[in-house]
Amino acid sequence: MKPTPHRRHLVTLADMPRAEMEALFALADRLRQPRPPRLLDGRTVVNLFFEPSTRTRVSFELAAMRLGADVVPFDVEHSSTQKGETLLDTLRNLEAMGCDQFVVRHKENGTPGALAEQAAGNVSIINAGDGNHAHPTQGLLDAYTIVRHKGDLANRCVAIVGDILHSRVARSDIHALRALGIGELRIAGPAALLPAADALPGCVVHHRIEDAVRGADVLIMLRLQKERMQHALIASDADYFRDWGLDPVRLRLAHPEAIVMHPGPINRNVEIADAVADGAQ
Amino acid sequence: MKPTPHRRHLVTLADMPRAEMEALFALADRLRQPRPPRLLDGRTVVNLFFEPSTRTRVSFELAAMRLGADVVPFDVEHSSTQKGETLLDTLRNLEAMGCDQFVVRHKENGTPGALAEQAAGNVSIINAGDGNHAHPTQGLLDAYTIVRHKGDLANRCVAIVGDILHSRVARSDIHALRALGIGELRIAGPAALLPAADALPGCVVHHRIEDAVRGADVLIMLRLQKERMQHALIASDADYFRDWGLDPVRLRLAHPEAIVMHPGPINRNVEIADAVADGAQ
Amino acid sequence: MKPTPHRRHLVTLADMPRAEMEALFALADRLRQPRPPRLLDGRTVVNLFFEPSTRTRVSFELAAMRLGADVVPFDVEHSSTQKGETLLDTLRNLEAMGCDQFVVRHKENGTPGALAEQAAGNVSIINAGDGNHAHPTQGLLDAYTIVRHKGDLANRCVAIVGDILHSRVARSDIHALRALGIGELRIAGPAALLPAADALPGCVVHHRIEDAVRGADVLIMLRLQKERMQHALIASDADYFRDWGLDPVRLRLAHPEAIVMHPGPINRNVEIADAVADGAQ
Repeated sequence: MKPTPHRRHLVTLADMPRAEMEALFALADRLRQPRPPRLLDGRTVVNLFFEPSTRTRVSFELAAMRLGADVVPFDVEHSSTQKGETLLDTLRNLEAMGCDQFVVRHKENGTPGALAEQAAGNVSIINAGDGNHAHPTQGLLDAYTIVRHKGDLANRCVAIVGDILHSRVARSDIHALRALGIGELRIAGPAALLPAADALPGCVVHHRIEDAVRGADVLIMLRLQKERMQHALIASDADYFRDWGLDPVRLRLAHPEAIVMHPGPINRNVEIADAVADGAQ
Repeated sequence: MKPTPHRRHLVTLADMPRAEMEALFALADRLRQPRPPRLLDGRTVVNLFFEPSTRTRVSFELAAMRLGADVVPFDVEHSSTQKGETLLDTLRNLEAMGCDQFVVRHKENGTPGALAEQAAGNVSIINAGDGNHAHPTQGLLDAYTIVRHKGDLANRCVAIVGDILHSRVARSDIHALRALGIGELRIAGPAALLPAADALPGCVVHHRIEDAVRGADVLIMLRLQKERMQHALIASDADYFRDWGLDPVRLRLAHPEAIVMHPGPINRNVEIADAVADGAQ
Repeated sequence: MKPTPHRRHLVTLADMPRAEMEALFALADRLRQPRPPRLLDGRTVVNLFFEPSTRTRVSFELAAMRLGADVVPFDVEHSSTQKGETLLDTLRNLEAMGCDQFVVRHKENGTPGALAEQAAGNVSIINAGDGNHAHPTQGLLDAYTIVRHKGDLANRCVAIVGDILHSRVARSDIHALRALGIGELRIAGPAALLPAADALPGCVVHHRIEDAVRGADVLIMLRLQKERMQHALIASDADYFRDWGLDPVRLRLAHPEAIVMHPGPINRNVEIADAVADGAQ
């Protein structure tokens, strides 16, 4: 299998073929050594985070630093976007300073894609999460983790459980796992937190966590994204945990070697019981 | 022409002779290569921004990083100046940690100059904008841009249009362009946003934008600095644009090869129409 | 004297023997050259500052940078701890990204120690101040300063004056100076700002600043930590200065070559008169 040519931007996984994902996974293997090659030497990376997320920002900063890039902290709260400057003007300005890679997180769906369409020819845009649209690097990381733990996915079953509606991670996970030929892909969550069925192609929807977990090789437990909920879509944390939380009893329904994943940050004892969060799986 | 000896601080352009500016422009040419010499290797640069300005801070950080300096982010909002420490004590502390270059932005006129007077002997202070007093690096950058586009300035005409009263950029631009022997220097803006005439030596003041633009080689459109206006000095954005905004019709009055500059961030369709801001000039 | 084996964490000085301190001082001498050896090359340092302190954070960042570490700014205000993530989960996440040194400041006593107990085997925790418990790096720095100015401490007298009750610096200074065999260690401050006598082993408590200062070789003037005082423990700044401030008259009571230290930031003319703060001693 020949890798596809380099893509310049990474906005979504919807159009990424299996061969390209596998080439990225092979590159990731190569970069996991303590002193990776300085592939980004001479490049300047800006993290444009319009939604605060220290964890994600730090992971991008560290990755860029270790690959030799100059990394510029860009504090959106203090930026000229407050003074009435458009996002595109901000991009143009940073381009003019020689910044050539932009990691963009934004609460509006489509912002990174719009910037990618307008960026200068030598500039790359990497989507670090936009609204509930896509989170392609998290999708790639989840898929990489699953493939390196479970090998070929043709006979594997992955269950994604929780707040699917607000989850850009779920969308990108689904794209990645389907491209990689996942055997069975289950989706489960409270009715109020599920999108319309046609938004979940290739997935089997379950309405009880037990049905989703039974026999699964991988459990992806999503975060309840209360900060994105405009109305109370769930009765209470305790109710959610009773109906949808992963506790040791439910975990025993899964394959004995099943792995449990969570994109973080965990609401402990809401999505996942302490005993599971801190357990070996 | 022999360059003057190195100055240690950069507080204003009022006293910088032409030869020194031209030596800096020649250095700037040399540093514009992708991997510039690491002239600041072993130096530690602190950005002391008492007014938030991501764009300017990032440009200083990138410049220092690319020249090999250690760059320390200094978050003024969280600093001990909140705990009652004086600015001079902050400087002394950072000096004691081996910081030797300070880029200072402050809303009070004269703060960088006062620090320069009190800094230790091996320490440099660079003014990144103080009140409406001076913005010497922006003035040098504007002058460099104009000289590299238009060559010798003896027969050139530059018009600075807009909120002159609140603009430290205008003050530094005027100093730089006069030192470089500008042929004609025009100033124009609403009466409420013009300083007294004796604050504008060597300038011709116009009261209609058309008169300022006609035949000019360079148009510098200033930002309406509403955040510095204590009272309503202009009736409305729409009124300002009608009287003082640069639109394609007015731009056609200028020299056909005129360039349009704006220190950013632009208030679009207040100072400059979209068609001009995104146009080739 | 053989240095003790490397300790992995630095949480308190209560258990650090003299030989280990002296080995650290010798290392500090070696690292004070302009281009120190890059002892932290390949390490990743995170500053987890749950109390804002630009000065301390910058000093740690600079030190780590100059020793070759990758330094990650971690903005606690924007971090997932806001989204309900526990501090331990934050640590686990940053560990998973390869961060291996954490500098922790926290308003609760014991937080760095608790993290040290739970950190992964290759990870170091350095306490940059917790509550009023300990500030071991400041204690080492103060002791280093005193030893390098005054040599062997067996015949020296150090006076610590001010708000002892709220001062983690005082606690760590006392540990360090006692381990180094200080001749006489005096403590003085208003009764409301002194801990119980049994919390000050090996110290002589004085109730007038003149008694503490008389003949001392070193005066450590502490900061009035009003932000930690829940009630008004002092009548006014002027009253405090009258009773406990160090002015030139009181300073003349000390040894003629006495040095005056303050952990900063100084409340000028509260703890120390301008003439003393800016004086040669």
